[in-house]
Amino acid sequence: MARLTNLELAKDCDNFPYFSDNPQLYEATVNDYYHFLLEGCPSVLGYVSSKVAERFPASRHWEIDASKRTVTFQPRDEQGSAISDFESRNAILADYLQSVREQRVFGVLDGWRSEKYPVYGPNKEILLSMERSATPLFGVVTYGIHMTGYVKTDQGMKIWAPRRALNKQTYPGMMDNTVAGGLTIGELPFDCLVREAEEEASLPADLVRTAKACGTLTYFHVRDARALGETGLCQPEVQYIYDLEMPPDIVPKPGDNEAIDFQLLTVEEVQTAMANGKFKPNCAHLLLEFFVRHGIMTAENEPDYLQIVSKLHRRLEFPMR
Amino acid sequence: MARLTNLELAKDCDNFPYFSDNPQLYEATVNDYYHFLLEGCPSVLGYVSSKVAERFPASRHWEIDASKRTVTFQPRDEQGSAISDFESRNAILADYLQSVREQRVFGVLDGWRSEKYPVYGPNKEILLSMERSATPLFGVVTYGIHMTGYVKTDQGMKIWAPRRALNKQTYPGMMDNTVAGGLTIGELPFDCLVREAEEEASLPADLVRTAKACGTLTYFHVRDARALGETGLCQPEVQYIYDLEMPPDIVPKPGDNEAIDFQLLTVEEVQTAMANGKFKPNCAHLLLEFFVRHGIMTAENEPDYLQIVSKLHRRLEFPMR
Repeated sequence: MARLTNLELAKDCDNFPYFSDNPQLYEATVNDYYHFLLEGCPSVLGYVSSKVAERFPASRHWEIDASKRTVTFQPRDEQGSAISDFESRNAILADYLQSVREQRVFGVLDGWRSEKYPVYGPNKEILLSMERSATPLFGVVTYGIHMTGYVKTDQGMKIWAPRRALNKQTYPGMMDNTVAGGLTIGELPFDCLVREAEEEASLPADLVRTAKACGTLTYFHVRDARALGETGLCQPEVQYIYDLEMPPDIVPKPGDNEAIDFQLLTVEEVQTAMANGKFKPNCAHLLLEFFVRHGIMTAENEPDYLQIVSKLHRRLEFPMR
Repeated sequence: MARLTNLELAKDCDNFPYFSDNPQLYEATVNDYYHFLLEGCPSVLGYVSSKVAERFPASRHWEIDASKRTVTFQPRDEQGSAISDFESRNAILADYLQSVREQRVFGVLDGWRSEKYPVYGPNKEILLSMERSATPLFGVVTYGIHMTGYVKTDQGMKIWAPRRALNKQTYPGMMDNTVAGGLTIGELPFDCLVREAEEEASLPADLVRTAKACGTLTYFHVRDARALGETGLCQPEVQYIYDLEMPPDIVPKPGDNEAIDFQLLTVEEVQTAMANGKFKPNCAHLLLEFFVRHGIMTAENEPDYLQIVSKLHRRLEFPMR
């Protein structure tokens, strides 16, 4: 396989078209997806692929309109009246998704996580509480944390990179960031970081609390076969970024079954693994951002610098946290 | 005056509408501007306000089309044949702008700089070499460097901030970033940084060469009265960002007539000055990015965190370097 350039890596993760690059392609793509709506809310909350939209099991709580290309969640009581309170609406959503899971309609629900992700409305209010594995079916924005743990050594900076377990629900066997995880409903990014660092990498909370918040990585990914499950699913994501300079004597260890092991790699080794397509796409994306921010990738050594940087901070077209 | 929030500061600099926020407003705004074209190049190179477009002095080298709302530069020889080579085209542009300056048609040309800025085409090739003070008339993308010089002290981080001279062509008397300047044609960002740090702040090149490249700040600013000259002019800009940790004994001094003085301010003092509208808009924008990257502004202490971060890295709709 030819080595991937940094721009190709950035495009591999942030691979939904941009309006500003090509308005026709953007609009054709957007119009090919069904728009996910919640009755009573004016905002489009996500994009649903036609293959998915056409396979949703029928229910009085859902209206799938093939001509308007909309998937509308419209919770109803047994008399057919609209239900608008948060708790009841989300109990209906949970029951529906559980039944879809049991009918084995969608492969991605085989990776059921029993974690709830928030879906936000236009006033930053939480509208829905959705099973994590279902979020790509609806193409809603999800939120996570990614932390790069690095060590300053005599041979320069080294980075801790785990390999994902071969039985992970998504991207099995690929390389990952030191610590990465998803924000469940009600969780703050920094708390999520401390929790995940403990669970996934057995890092002590006292050390992790010295991690530095460095901004966000935002991108709009369309899933392919590497993710397992359906392809063409939309994943607009926001990752809160943290850096942690680690003392040489702290060695991360898999704390749950998410990683096989952790390797301490030089920047060059990380770059080679990225170019060889070994990293999960959004993890390579995160590392590009890390290299930009640390002056490892610069305008002078990377010809596609501006194009890459602009893809690390995409403005998403959905309501956000 | 009420204190400005960080989101208001971000919106003050990046104040051109977004397609993804409001497609109708975006398209109405874009269509209200004339589109700046170079004959033979398919890309729109910038937006020109109607007030400006309608006042361009007539010339065989220019076609102003009020119905298509285009301003097209079409260099011609005396027989009326198209001229397409780089040198001749830019000699014609320079002569034209010099004559417009002498006719005192546009206030911004009173701030004539005698510096040439590059205008790029869709294949990253330089198409035009344009007098710096004319770039906002055409709304083309310009490139610069901004460096934050900071000192670690017993009272925490402090930042060096100059006050702009009262006779500056733009934003007189406002506060600025430690070092900021524009990339002239053919100049690399890091070389520009070293040059400007010497000229503006008398900083030794050896020290400045230890500055760290940290990415870019991109935004689309529409000028108001603070800039002096015409209002409503478009300034889509790319700033290459650098951080420099400075030893306490190095004190920047105005090296030319651009700054009155330099003040060493605590983060809180900087934030207060920003909230009081004392900083030049793009300098406040740069400082927001600095605070995000250094973990001073976080998702936990800033309710508009995601909205602010997304405005610091705008994807511009014009060809770029």
